[in-house]
Order: sequence, then C-alpha cells, then structure tokens
Amino acid sequence: MTPPDFSFSLTGQDGHARAGLLRTAHGEVPTPCFMAVGTAGTVKAMTADAVRATGTRVVLGNTYHLMLRPTAERVARLGGLHKMMDWPGPILTDSGGFQIMSLAKLRKLEEKGVTFRSHIDGTAHELTPERATEIQHLLDATITMQLDECTKFPATHHEALESMELSLRWARRSRDAFVKRPGYGQFGIMQGNVFEDLRRRSAAALVELDFEGYAIGGLAVGEGQETMFEVLDYCTDFLPARKPRYLMGVGTPDDLLGAVARGVDMFDCVMPTRAGRTARAFTSNGIFNMRNARFQDDARPLDESCACTACTRHTRAYLHHLFRCEEMLGPILLTTHNLTYYQTVMQGARKAILDQNYESYCADVRGNWQRGPDA
Amino acid sequence: MTPPDFSFSLTGQDGHARAGLLRTAHGEVPTPCFMAVGTAGTVKAMTADAVRATGTRVVLGNTYHLMLRPTAERVARLGGLHKMMDWPGPILTDSGGFQIMSLAKLRKLEEKGVTFRSHIDGTAHELTPERATEIQHLLDATITMQLDECTKFPATHHEALESMELSLRWARRSRDAFVKRPGYGQFGIMQGNVFEDLRRRSAAALVELDFEGYAIGGLAVGEGQETMFEVLDYCTDFLPARKPRYLMGVGTPDDLLGAVARGVDMFDCVMPTRAGRTARAFTSNGIFNMRNARFQDDARPLDESCACTACTRHTRAYLHHLFRCEEMLGPILLTTHNLTYYQTVMQGARKAILDQNYESYCADVRGNWQRGPDA
Repeated sequence: MTPPDFSFSLTGQDGHARAGLLRTAHGEVPTPCFMAVGTAGTVKAMTADAVRATGTRVVLGNTYHLMLRPTAERVARLGGLHKMMDWPGPILTDSGGFQIMSLAKLRKLEEKGVTFRSHIDGTAHELTPERATEIQHLLDATITMQLDECTKFPATHHEALESMELSLRWARRSRDAFVKRPGYGQFGIMQGNVFEDLRRRSAAALVELDFEGYAIGGLAVGEGQETMFEVLDYCTDFLPARKPRYLMGVGTPDDLLGAVARGVDMFDCVMPTRAGRTARAFTSNGIFNMRNARFQDDARPLDESCACTACTRHTRAYLHHLFRCEEMLGPILLTTHNLTYYQTVMQGARKAILDQNYESYCADVRGNWQRGPDA
Repeated sequence: MTPPDFSFSLTGQDGHARAGLLRTAHGEVPTPCFMAVGTAGTVKAMTADAVRATGTRVVLGNTYHLMLRPTAERVARLGGLHKMMDWPGPILTDSGGFQIMSLAKLRKLEEKGVTFRSHIDGTAHELTPERATEIQHLLDATITMQLDECTKFPATHHEALESMELSLRWARRSRDAFVKRPGYGQFGIMQGNVFEDLRRRSAAALVELDFEGYAIGGLAVGEGQETMFEVLDYCTDFLPARKPRYLMGVGTPDDLLGAVARGVDMFDCVMPTRAGRTARAFTSNGIFNMRNARFQDDARPLDESCACTACTRHTRAYLHHLFRCEEMLGPILLTTHNLTYYQTVMQGARKAILDQNYESYCADVRGNWQRGPDA
C-alpha cells in the first residue's frame, strides 16, 4: 500500500481559528494539535503507551540531542526513531535552530552552519542546513524542520533582519537537501522577531520554496504573551491558508487558545511535561502546585473532569505525598495528567471551531481557570 | 458478601519445595510468590497498572516510612493503602523491625519498644508492638507483621538469644494487639540469627501464638547465601506445614530458587526494583548492566523469552540510550522487566513443583544464566 501524500485540509473555520486534518505516512492528525516533546527519543517519564493514552498524536524529537546521543546514524541502524521509541505515529523533529539561541555560549555561527560544543563532553559537532536535513532523514522524521537561527529577544531591526536573511538562505539549502518521500513533509520557519516587515518578507520568501507547512519561529523567547499575540495577529495572514501552521515552543493552555484564535494549527512545548516533573498541575480549575500542604488531606481527584489515570484512580493527597517523598510516580502521574489536559483543551477547541463557538469555548475554559482548587 | 477467612492450602510438594494458595480478603495468591516492595505507598517508578502487568499479586508497604509520611492516620482517612495506591490486591506491611537494624544510629531500643529519630526531619517517633500493629491496621494491611528486632550479623549467641527473646515478648504483645478480621492475617517473625537452637526455640514459641503465617527474619543481612541456605535447611522444619512461610528481604533469583527448595513460600526484596533504577537487568541469560557500551548497537530484545513492554517493544540499544541519558523511562522499563522476570521465575517454580520436576527446573534456569548476553 502506498502511503498517502503529505497533505493538510481545512475541515472548519471560526473567525481566524481553523480545524484541519493533517495526513502523513504515519497517520492522520486532527488539528489544532499539541505535540508532546520527546527530546532524546522519549517523552520524559512516559512509556509510549502512556503517551498514546493521553490523546497525543504527534511527538517531537530533537536533532541536537539525538545527534549527540545515540547519534542519527545509530537511530537509523535501529530502524528509525518510530521503531526505537515504539511510536508508529507521526514524529516531528526540530533542526537544532533553537539550540543556536539557547546554547549561544557553546556554538560558533557561520554562513555555512553552526558548530556546537557538546554540552555533555565538549566534542565539536557541525550542523549545516544539509546535515540537519540529513540527520532528520536518518531519524525518519515524518516532519523535517529547516535549519534556522532562532533570533534572540530583544533584537534590533538590523539584527533581526540579518538573522532572518540567514535563516532564509538556510531554508533554501534545507529545501534542496530534503528528499521528498510520500507522506513526509518539510516545514520552513518564519523568522523576523517582532518586526512586521521582516515577518512578511520571511514568509513570502519561504512560500516560494513551497514547503509542506510553515512554522512561526522566534516567539515565546521572552517577549511576553501580549507581544506574541500582536505578532500572531498579523503574521499568520502571511502564510498560505492551505498549509499547516506551527507555532514553535508554545506554550501555556492560555497561549494555545489565543494562538488558535489567531490561526495557528500546531504547537509543541516542554511545559506540560516539565511542569509534570515539578509538581505543577494544569487543570480545568487552574494551575496547582501539588507540593502545597493544602492538598495533604485532599481526597478529591486532581481534576474531576479529567479521564486520566491520575484523576480517575488517585487523590490529590496521594499526588502530594508522592511529590513530598520525591517518588518517580509523582512525575509519571502528573505528566500523564498534564498531557491529557492539554489534549483535552485542544480537542475541545477543535470541536468548538467545527461548532462555530470557539470564542465562547475559550471564555468558558478561561473562566473555569479562575475557580481554583476548591471549586 | 463475607470475605473468605485468611487461609493457606498446599496444592503440591516436590521434596521440600511447596506450591500453595493463599486466600485473603483482597484476593488469592498462588505461592511460591514474590512480593514487590512499595515502601512509601508506591512501587518505585511504576503505576499500579504497570505492577499488575508484571504478574505481581502482592505489594509491600513499610510501617516506618508510611508512619512518617503521609502518616498512618492520614492513610486511614484516605480509605487505606489499597485505595490510596490503587492496589485492591493483598498488601503486606512490615512492622519497622528491619529499620531497628538498618537505622541503628537513629533509634533507642527499650523493652517497651523503639524510638526513632526521623531520617527526614529528626522528629521522634515511638514504635511499640501495640503501635506497630495499630499502624498496620490503619493502613488496612492484609498481612500485618509483628514488631521484631532484626538481629544484626554477626552476633554472639548471647546477643542473638537476648534479641530473639525480646522479639518473642514483642510477638505476644503484637498478637494481643491484632484485631482479627475475616481475610486478614498476622505473621510472627522467627529470629535466632544463625543459631539452630535459637531458631528452634523462637519458632516453637511463635507457633503457640497461632499466627496466620510465619516469617523467617534476620537473614540476608550479610551472612551470605551459603550460610542463609544452611539456616533454611533446618529452620523451615520448625514451622507448621499448613501455614505460609515468608523469608524476609530475599533476594536474587538464585536465592529464591534455593529458598523455595528449602520450603519457603513467600519473598520480598528491593532487588528487582532497585536494580531496575540502576541499569541492572535480571534476565533468563543472566544479569546485565545496561550502561555497558556493548549494548549501544544491540538491536535485540533485552530478553527474548520475556513478554514485558521493555522486551517486546524495545531494543537493548534503546535501554542503553535511556540510561546513558538518565531518562526516567530507563528505570520505568527496567523495573517493569525485572519484576516480570522475578514473577516468571516464580510462576515457573510453581508449575515445576506441581509437575514434580523442581530440581531440573532450577538446573535449567541456573544453566541459562551462564549463557550471557550473546546467547
């Protein structure tokens, strides 16, 4: 059976908010969707079955981390990331562009690419647009990202222009290096910081390269939600309606609702998984810190409206106890819950868009966050 | 429906090795059986569903740890340990006697009981036979253990005698404090170190108290396997045939096979779970250290004959990668495997006893351990 071509179709729209369906070699993904971060080939604290049970349809892998350990060639020898992780569904891999910013002290940036000093053992690793694309091919990524430079914030217009233009030149080289395969896609990454003219130029040039989808990069890097929403207010319109739009590294459930309202289809963020390891619970009644002593005798479920294992089988008091004792089951259960909550919010958003009541859905969800743990 | 009375029946015997069935208020347990340690109300790194999937039928809780956090009264308010942990099956709780030895520097031992300085915050906690029994009642333990003093090794005959006699006086007080309930039981603990006369006297006195089962305490404390087996060679005969026999804190799969051969029915040990967190794999081909670089390209399953998630969904190379990256999924998967392996060995032992070929079963299992990872 030939895998379907990589495609995206809109199934509904409500204002700027879109519901869609992404088809890939590794299965279909209803959008809007939240993708779980699996940096080193594992969504932290979760078996693949546990990730699936949260409703997650796409996981992320990180080029930078996987090229250091276990190496892209080794993943390829093991049959690719899907097989290695026991994740037959779609996998999106970032290109290492984010680490150009986050590991600024450990890298040398040149026209041809970037050289990292490994944060593990100090060895040098070169990442060019061609090599980043090849690595993602070796990983068998369903969705490959171009190599880009994620511009720091704040940046001057001149710095943002130079950086955006470098990312564009790398976009062309990444696109040339990408081996098209049925059901696989490559996304270009719009840069331009908070400057509308740069975002417009970046998008226009990327669209000429005809990527299978477009990411909005360089946001959620310290500019704050208000500024991020201002940028999204104009920049999604620069992207073609019939291609998926992916806002990289975002965010809180509130960020997701706001970005969907502005026409974004896909998200990834470490927030639900990282918070799950540090006792922060995202719930329909707001964000709780499970270490708080207020929960020590609280026999209620973490979130009554949630169907996950943490909420249907255990109490807040037990979660509190597990985190106090630094038991691994605390992170396991709370990561399960947080991912389930994110997916529940996204599923609700999709339904609301199809039902043409996205605005009131957001108002309800946001209103409920005000209720707090004693609701 | 009235729960069945707590009972034990032998279903088979091969030499001294016994197959049996334990009936409790929380379900039946075929023996020989290995019980998974869940010190603080969680089998480390495992959801309750994951523990069940390994074939584990009984989990342990620790009186000392649970009385400190979350406290026995709090567990009772939360409906007991079964409900708190999502473990409706049988739970055995130790009495704190082991900590009298292991936390020797943090406790004061007197006739009436022991006072611990909490290893967490230094607060004082008194544990008498009566209080240890009450705590286990509050926890809703299916099987309550008497408070005992686990004698250190080595000990002189005089020290072992004094300690054993203290444990006997505590046994009487524990038995008096135990509230009999249908399907619940209390085990006495034989002490006497490596001295046959003391073991005999301890057992005889305990049997007069008519416990629902008997534990063999004070072994696996540094005496070595050979000495442990020598003690077991005589001391199981001091216990009534129609009651379950539980060897506390033991051990390796080899220890288990040897102890079953000597008439032991029940075991607990941190070994499979602790090893699972430190990259040591118990397999049908022997013990492997998954951090070893020999596994970095090894695309084979950890143990071909094992049906657990780690073995059916992943490769040795992936497990190696997870431990190198210190990803939580490494401990999760390897704990899953190690517990599954222990249960598989116990299920095989039971079948072999019923089939009257226990000796050849042990020879096969032990022979296979010599094959190593390249078998």
